[in-house]
Amino acid sequence: MTMTKVGVLGARGKVGAAICEAVRAAEDMDLVAEVDQGDPLQMLTDRGAEVVVDFTHPDVVMSNLEFCVSHGIHAVVGTTGFTEERLGTLRGWLESSPGTGVLVAPNFAIGAILMMRFAVQAARYFPSAEIVELHHPNKADAPSGTAHRTAEMMGAARAEAGLGPSPDATSTELEGARGAEVDGIRVHSVRVTGLVAHQEVLLGSQGETLTIRHDSLDRTSFAPGVLLGVRAIAGAPGLTVGLDSFMDL
Amino acid sequence: MTMTKVGVLGARGKVGAAICEAVRAAEDMDLVAEVDQGDPLQMLTDRGAEVVVDFTHPDVVMSNLEFCVSHGIHAVVGTTGFTEERLGTLRGWLESSPGTGVLVAPNFAIGAILMMRFAVQAARYFPSAEIVELHHPNKADAPSGTAHRTAEMMGAARAEAGLGPSPDATSTELEGARGAEVDGIRVHSVRVTGLVAHQEVLLGSQGETLTIRHDSLDRTSFAPGVLLGVRAIAGAPGLTVGLDSFMDL
Amino acid sequence: MTMTKVGVLGARGKVGAAICEAVRAAEDMDLVAEVDQGDPLQMLTDRGAEVVVDFTHPDVVMSNLEFCVSHGIHAVVGTTGFTEERLGTLRGWLESSPGTGVLVAPNFAIGAILMMRFAVQAARYFPSAEIVELHHPNKADAPSGTAHRTAEMMGAARAEAGLGPSPDATSTELEGARGAEVDGIRVHSVRVTGLVAHQEVLLGSQGETLTIRHDSLDRTSFAPGVLLGVRAIAGAPGLTVGLDSFMDL
Amino acid sequence: MTMTKVGVLGARGKVGAAICEAVRAAEDMDLVAEVDQGDPLQMLTDRGAEVVVDFTHPDVVMSNLEFCVSHGIHAVVGTTGFTEERLGTLRGWLESSPGTGVLVAPNFAIGAILMMRFAVQAARYFPSAEIVELHHPNKADAPSGTAHRTAEMMGAARAEAGLGPSPDATSTELEGARGAEVDGIRVHSVRVTGLVAHQEVLLGSQGETLTIRHDSLDRTSFAPGVLLGVRAIAGAPGLTVGLDSFMDL
Repeated sequence: MTMTKVGVLGARGKVGAAICEAVRAAEDMDLVAEVDQGDPLQMLTDRGAEVVVDFTHPDVVMSNLEFCVSHGIHAVVGTTGFTEERLGTLRGWLESSPGTGVLVAPNFAIGAILMMRFAVQAARYFPSAEIVELHHPNKADAPSGTAHRTAEMMGAARAEAGLGPSPDATSTELEGARGAEVDGIRVHSVRVTGLVAHQEVLLGSQGETLTIRHDSLDRTSFAPGVLLGVRAIAGAPGLTVGLDSFMDL
Repeated sequence: MTMTKVGVLGARGKVGAAICEAVRAAEDMDLVAEVDQGDPLQMLTDRGAEVVVDFTHPDVVMSNLEFCVSHGIHAVVGTTGFTEERLGTLRGWLESSPGTGVLVAPNFAIGAILMMRFAVQAARYFPSAEIVELHHPNKADAPSGTAHRTAEMMGAARAEAGLGPSPDATSTELEGARGAEVDGIRVHSVRVTGLVAHQEVLLGSQGETLTIRHDSLDRTSFAPGVLLGVRAIAGAPGLTVGLDSFMDL
Repeated sequence: MTMTKVGVLGARGKVGAAICEAVRAAEDMDLVAEVDQGDPLQMLTDRGAEVVVDFTHPDVVMSNLEFCVSHGIHAVVGTTGFTEERLGTLRGWLESSPGTGVLVAPNFAIGAILMMRFAVQAARYFPSAEIVELHHPNKADAPSGTAHRTAEMMGAARAEAGLGPSPDATSTELEGARGAEVDGIRVHSVRVTGLVAHQEVLLGSQGETLTIRHDSLDRTSFAPGVLLGVRAIAGAPGLTVGLDSFMDL
Repeated sequence: MTMTKVGVLGARGKVGAAICEAVRAAEDMDLVAEVDQGDPLQMLTDRGAEVVVDFTHPDVVMSNLEFCVSHGIHAVVGTTGFTEERLGTLRGWLESSPGTGVLVAPNFAIGAILMMRFAVQAARYFPSAEIVELHHPNKADAPSGTAHRTAEMMGAARAEAGLGPSPDATSTELEGARGAEVDGIRVHSVRVTGLVAHQEVLLGSQGETLTIRHDSLDRTSFAPGVLLGVRAIAGAPGLTVGLDSFMDL
């Protein structure tokens, strides 16, 4: 088995530590560098890192990536804050280093990615679609970012397929009962102690319903997706956005 | 086995027909009279009905019951429209006919009754409680009457137990996302083609949740509850409100 | 809008009647012929049927199709009993009538088709996978045919992706607790009064689960899929097996 | 507010530490003694503990309780291994110390207790009942102890109510598909990575189902139940078995 030499940036953060542990446990990877604030990026080149995983901070991720790309090190990036402008800059660097690949993804939880994908694929086949997302009560935003994005993508798929609004004969509504509306999809946010992070997409047609549910019970659920990215990135030069590009769907 | 002689009022309506069928199928009952508009109530006395089931109309139910009570026939009543005033009148008639029993119940679906009962019993033990009710899209009111009543009863149980509001850190809300509020309980109404009538009560505490869900897939779900009422009413003189009085809970 | 002229074979059966009703309700279709036992197939040509829907019987479906194909009428077929041999015969007829299309599908419920499709696509990404199917207690076989097929297809996808068996440390088992095993997938069959036909596919990875659930509450759930087939078949000459070929997945 | 002085035995274990934290957070309790192996039990009397919580080991719990009861300290006990003989010994000690209360409970998760309670109460009203329990794949026994106990109690309630076996027309079964049978209740054990500990009780009657589900996502879910026991035990002299005795159900 060929071993891939992996470096982790942000290695001493909570997420980074979980990634280090996952890389160490992977039979086809060697964790060669654990880099965090204050450490020189040369550690990556000194130790021959072939792929870097970056879960750091918007303030430092661009200089991290400039270093990696210029040294031909592939990168798998979970750090947030990628505007179109930043993606453009990244593409420019990658043009000067053909053969190097960078994956930028907002979400590495494979279950969440599939839930969204299937919800969008199914959306055009059902007159009715709604989303119920359920989280612990310390969450600040309602609906969740994932639910909002899912609704937008489903709304677009429905529009493209020529579907009108979901049928709804409600004539007497207590304010808020029917949820929030995002691009024609009703979204309901449940906040209950004891829950972690859950989302249910309900689709309905004559005599049948299809429900796609994702339950995230633990914050390490991103690890298998990060490993999937590490395995695929060497074979995908240039910029890739979204882990689903590497999934066989 | 003693057979109970049962008469059905409103026998040719949709609900009445289903009740006639259930009575016919019950091994301990004889269906002796099927009465509907235009038929004389004497059919009941002529054929010796011991218990009458009334699923008729608010306009006629009181004269039906006056006849039954004055002839010592017990009654199980699913007809709506019972105000406090009507219940008072009924109590007066029953005083003149000791030994006769009348059950008036808004709901005969045993699963729905238990769902509400358990939700209320559990309410005082969980800091968080919300309701999600799901129905076909032809329903006019949101939330459903059952969800509204459940929330009121749970809210009262929480208040009695000295519980404050459910924790909720939502600071950014898209209008309606957190549902409607009924006595401190958030209620979410989902409307999706293919659904019939469903309700889920979620209760949460540190590290655990309890979910009580009722699914009604077919309009005949009231039948077992009606039979339970018929079997119990002869042993319960006077007025009884709510089928749960006859359940061992 | 162009109207498609549709004939229904087996029009007076339960399923056929539901299809006639759905065709009549479709804005882009004309129901021109309702044919059943004893009626001459010429009704189809006389009335200019462009597409025929056949939900009849294995004994008559082949002669129905021979007639349709030889007259250039497209066919959407839900009748069972299609062996490889029968499909071969059908392909032969279609070669002599280029431009004519026939769709043969074992399942027209779009929700069920998508549930199976998504379950198979997701199977390779999760170490654990199990199926729970839930039906009314009058069902003779356990597991259901759909659950069995889903498990086979998921097992094949897992094998292809190089996944070993799902982790399972069970060392003390009461016989049957862990369900039946179909190609490495555990399948559990629940039989409860009040249920209709439901299936849940559970997939799990580190810290997250994905659940895909199909609920069939009413036997008319095949109708939208039949209409989808009718709309697509004219553009798909030759033999097509399975409705998912016409879905954009 | 009167503060109750609480001592914790087994305070440095995982469970004990979580209990210490919960007691410290409770507004009506003072954590006066954290006792573990090697510490003298006199710490409890020296610091005036009024109630002791014991989550230790079957080898030491009896001497712990002998000490507590003889000093008039109430005890809330989650330690396992209580045979009828041990309970008898305990009752003897308590007779000599009227006014002292001891609660021995196998389960302090309020959600689990309520799930079992409601399942048993409902059992007599539904012809069909099955249990699906779902756990992480490292669990050794199938079904879980909780599912087994739930089925026994439901089976007894059904028998008492004169219910026969759940209807089941299965004539072709792949071995294990219909689950294990415990006192007439079918129990299905799902083992999937990413799950923690979950149980679903399904009850069904004509046209409706009732589902009671408990999800335990975190091992601290016993804490609110322990506090409930601490608050109630001073008012309940003698031996109490099971936390539900202190719940208003």
